[in-house]
Amino acid sequence: MNVTNLAPLAEWVHISLTPPSSGDNVADVERIKRKLQDKFSPLEIPLDIIKKIPSLLRRNNWQFYLLIADMGTHFKVRDVSPVKRTNFGLAIDLGSTTIAVYIMNLETGQEVARTSCLNEQIQFGTDILDRLHYARYKKGLQKLQESVITSIKKAVSKLSLENGVSGENITALTIAGNTSMTHLFLGLETSNIYREPYTPTVNSPGIISASEFDLPVHPEAVIYFFPNVGSYLGGDIISGVIATEIHLTDGMNVLVDIGTNGEIVVGNKEWMVGCAGAAGPALEGGVVKCGMRAAPGAIEQFHITPEGKIKYKTIGDKPPIGLCGSGLISCIAQLFLRNILDHSGTFANNKDYFVLVPASETGHGQDIVITSDDIANFLRTKSAVNAAFSVLLENLGLSFEDVSRFYAAGAFGNYLDIEDAITIGLFPDISRDKFKIAGNTSVAGAKKTLLNRENIKLAEEITKKIAYLELNADAKFMNYFTSGLFIPHTNLDLFPSVKQKVKSFST
Amino acid sequence: MNVTNLAPLAEWVHISLTPPSSGDNVADVERIKRKLQDKFSPLEIPLDIIKKIPSLLRRNNWQFYLLIADMGTHFKVRDVSPVKRTNFGLAIDLGSTTIAVYIMNLETGQEVARTSCLNEQIQFGTDILDRLHYARYKKGLQKLQESVITSIKKAVSKLSLENGVSGENITALTIAGNTSMTHLFLGLETSNIYREPYTPTVNSPGIISASEFDLPVHPEAVIYFFPNVGSYLGGDIISGVIATEIHLTDGMNVLVDIGTNGEIVVGNKEWMVGCAGAAGPALEGGVVKCGMRAAPGAIEQFHITPEGKIKYKTIGDKPPIGLCGSGLISCIAQLFLRNILDHSGTFANNKDYFVLVPASETGHGQDIVITSDDIANFLRTKSAVNAAFSVLLENLGLSFEDVSRFYAAGAFGNYLDIEDAITIGLFPDISRDKFKIAGNTSVAGAKKTLLNRENIKLAEEITKKIAYLELNADAKFMNYFTSGLFIPHTNLDLFPSVKQKVKSFST
Repeated sequence: MNVTNLAPLAEWVHISLTPPSSGDNVADVERIKRKLQDKFSPLEIPLDIIKKIPSLLRRNNWQFYLLIADMGTHFKVRDVSPVKRTNFGLAIDLGSTTIAVYIMNLETGQEVARTSCLNEQIQFGTDILDRLHYARYKKGLQKLQESVITSIKKAVSKLSLENGVSGENITALTIAGNTSMTHLFLGLETSNIYREPYTPTVNSPGIISASEFDLPVHPEAVIYFFPNVGSYLGGDIISGVIATEIHLTDGMNVLVDIGTNGEIVVGNKEWMVGCAGAAGPALEGGVVKCGMRAAPGAIEQFHITPEGKIKYKTIGDKPPIGLCGSGLISCIAQLFLRNILDHSGTFANNKDYFVLVPASETGHGQDIVITSDDIANFLRTKSAVNAAFSVLLENLGLSFEDVSRFYAAGAFGNYLDIEDAITIGLFPDISRDKFKIAGNTSVAGAKKTLLNRENIKLAEEITKKIAYLELNADAKFMNYFTSGLFIPHTNLDLFPSVKQKVKSFST
Repeated sequence: MNVTNLAPLAEWVHISLTPPSSGDNVADVERIKRKLQDKFSPLEIPLDIIKKIPSLLRRNNWQFYLLIADMGTHFKVRDVSPVKRTNFGLAIDLGSTTIAVYIMNLETGQEVARTSCLNEQIQFGTDILDRLHYARYKKGLQKLQESVITSIKKAVSKLSLENGVSGENITALTIAGNTSMTHLFLGLETSNIYREPYTPTVNSPGIISASEFDLPVHPEAVIYFFPNVGSYLGGDIISGVIATEIHLTDGMNVLVDIGTNGEIVVGNKEWMVGCAGAAGPALEGGVVKCGMRAAPGAIEQFHITPEGKIKYKTIGDKPPIGLCGSGLISCIAQLFLRNILDHSGTFANNKDYFVLVPASETGHGQDIVITSDDIANFLRTKSAVNAAFSVLLENLGLSFEDVSRFYAAGAFGNYLDIEDAITIGLFPDISRDKFKIAGNTSVAGAKKTLLNRENIKLAEEITKKIAYLELNADAKFMNYFTSGLFIPHTNLDLFPSVKQKVKSFST
């Protein structure tokens, strides 16, 4: 983001006025509006702000600062200050399992700090459906809302403290989350999301005052919530489109975002189609026995030599304490290629676990293992993503070969081995140079939009443009899902290079 | 107002939706917006309303009612109801002396009831300047705001009770008042209004939630405040332009509104110029010894026969108890023509009062008199209006003869004798058929705008279009004012028909 392109969601605007004279005695408020009309129009200045203006102008030599926010339908003055104030914002990826929070300096466009934390809603179920069911109990929705807001509150307070950012100086937030997460944050009815015909309460929540929620930010801060296309294609993937700029491309571009759900958008500047498959949090450390978030000590790469010797790399080169998403993918691929795991995901020795790193080498003095449950969980995740992608292509009359670029987004950590991901059948077996590891595109789009509000219009337009394929109502999806519960797939012809590799490893 | 043209400031809109299906599972909120997009766009639906929508829709067979208000910058949903609710609004002329309140049925466009009451701010001074000075004392502004709101509150409560209108069903208000009155109602700083360079705090307050004020109406009702052109050309005259439709005319049209101030707009569909002269409340019953508002028992016509016999007509044909504005004008004209008052406003018998109706004939058993103070007060009022008009014409290079139509608006009561008003020099001596007695144009424009929100845009445009002549800074004004303190004027040649009449009466 070029600083000259900064147009943050909320900004402190310096106002310097020519005092009124007998030749120009337009009122104080209109004198301000006249100054702002090119950039901020229509502009609402609420009564409580108007009350402060006359004396402030006259005491402060006709200079002061206004906090102006984009409200979607119009601009609104949120606060007034005689002196300059620094301006920060939060870009948030609201995941079902992990929440990523970035503090951005809205004057320079620079990232100040970032953190990620567990979504405390997990106490009400790792699976989203469990939480949606819980929301129907008395005060269930309220508790779910409180727990996600508490998670963010703690993360923001910690980050603010560590980085010397006062909450009062945080004036804008962008939040990208899936449809259910966004509804739960807003305290909205979710019971129609997961029942036919899968109807959210709202597609575009728009911009809402932060005062509606208990957050440690400026009381007049505003929050933009990325819109959803349907019950299972959420604001996180819309934010991902903004980040990857698929809407500006030619050819057939694919954005696959694997979080707790697997969301997919396919398209270009002319058209876009999207769908989602329930993936489960296998890659986010929420379900896998030795799984963990991408943090120091997490195994992110895993290799087994032809001699059976195990090599791995951890984040920060610390002693290993668990597996993050990319480590899990890498590990399953290697176990499969070395025949420790068979085609169906069963351990060759018929045990129900495999020791990846013995206790003597780990950071916590316990074995790091992978279990047959972990494998089964993972196969469901990858098969759901895979099936969704296949149904989408079939509906479009296209095949893997038509893909121009494949953006792999999601909770993999910093490192992802494309070769491993293809080996296990998570990604299609296409030319490797078409892949782009895109990281957390949800938070990337949230950052971009926080810094330039023009992206809000874009996000709303893209949402309207995406044709949504409802897989819950699609029989083909279940067929593909079932045939995908293998490594790499029931139909090995879909993965010619993997077939070749398996052969070469066996010889 | 034709019912088919009704587009009230706030309205209950019936929503009937096709339930979602697998082929159309757009979210609840967007399903509603889709239905409303032609008429109400952009539309804000606040979070607290969104929360109520899903269950309401499903319990109520996908039908319900939304209260939608024009917010100036956008439309906003203010309330939701499963059943139809009646809709009323208030059109208010916020005078310094008298406040007129009309209850309108916003579904039929009919007037339900009207009342007028004294502005309780009068306890802080009959003169506006006294109140503006008082506003500078500790809590002065707050007390002034409270007293005007209390006045309206009492009037509305009484009217509502008498007419079976529940406050909850009053959803919109339009308030037309002069610049100071509007500022005091809003609780805004007024100290710059009356000091050079005469700068209001705000020209266009726009639409504000009624919840900012303590009024017996729907908590989400909205109030439109008519904009002002400057410190002394207020929302009441802008409302008057809307009522008289000068902005649609050819020729040179004049709107003179005499309340506590005399405000004048001259122009047509191409251009408009406005100014104001401090008039004082001589015509509103606030200053004149036996003055009263236009109510039953007020003398509205007065005549003295050549034989010196006094005849009068009262409102409602009740025994007389005082003089309303038109009665005062009529009375001074007759006293002048019968040589009881001379050219300078002095009683011929050198007394300082004259008995108009003896105690034996009055409704309260006391003489109804007119005093030399009353005459002097009145002459200042008429001279201020006259001088303002003369300066305006001079600036435009026009004369009385150029007037196409003369709208006489203000607090005269129901009846006004144009001949008498010319005789005393209040109105110019032009062809009688050019006059139109327009009544309370301030409240008429407020009614019109309450029933059709398109008039808001019009009012804002007209305000920007009017060139404002600041008379406080004009030396010519004081000259004209001084020479106007005579009946009809120092320069009798300006009033040829009066000159003629005086001659014929003397012979």
